[in-house]
Amino acid sequence: MHPAIEDVTLESVLYALADPTRLEIVKKLANCSLNCSMASPADLPKSTQSHHFQVLREAGLIRSERRGTEVVNSLRCSELEKRFPGVIASIVKASEKAKKR
Amino acid sequence: MHPAIEDVTLESVLYALADPTRLEIVKKLANCSLNCSMASPADLPKSTQSHHFQVLREAGLIRSERRGTEVVNSLRCSELEKRFPGVIASIVKASEKAKKR
Repeated sequence: MHPAIEDVTLESVLYALADPTRLEIVKKLANCSLNCSMASPADLPKSTQSHHFQVLREAGLIRSERRGTEVVNSLRCSELEKRFPGVIASIVKASEKAKKR
Repeated sequence: MHPAIEDVTLESVLYALADPTRLEIVKKLANCSLNCSMASPADLPKSTQSHHFQVLREAGLIRSERRGTEVVNSLRCSELEKRFPGVIASIVKASEKAKKR
């Protein structure tokens, strides 16, 4: 379900982040761990949300864990920072900056 | 042909870089301006090369200028750095690091 960090490619990470909804999810997760319904835009159909979380998970960006009845998602921050130094942080920051305009 | 830097979106930049060939081209251009045939992998058909350069150009990553009989491509380094600080530099660096393994 979750790829080992050594198997995560930069291309798959960039592809996963090239979608506005997924970038939005990652930005929210960059601040804290959230359950699915909190992390994704509320107006999306459940199947679309699931798809985006799956792409993020398979690309190695997030970890999804069941806690009781909910699924809690978290960004694989420290692993990603070690493998691709500065990449996620600069993308999240640039995206927040672009949004402010 | 070349979008104004204000119109360049982070998503389009990430999408353009999510392809191994295009990432390779951008890495080469990060070091210097090159003509098409030098910047792209030699074993690709010309039409495929043209397509990749077009995606990079339309995403706002590169500038293509005709000089005599050849087209010289350059990365829009300083504009991109101003708009998305650290993004291209960290991606190029992470990609070079990943390649070394």
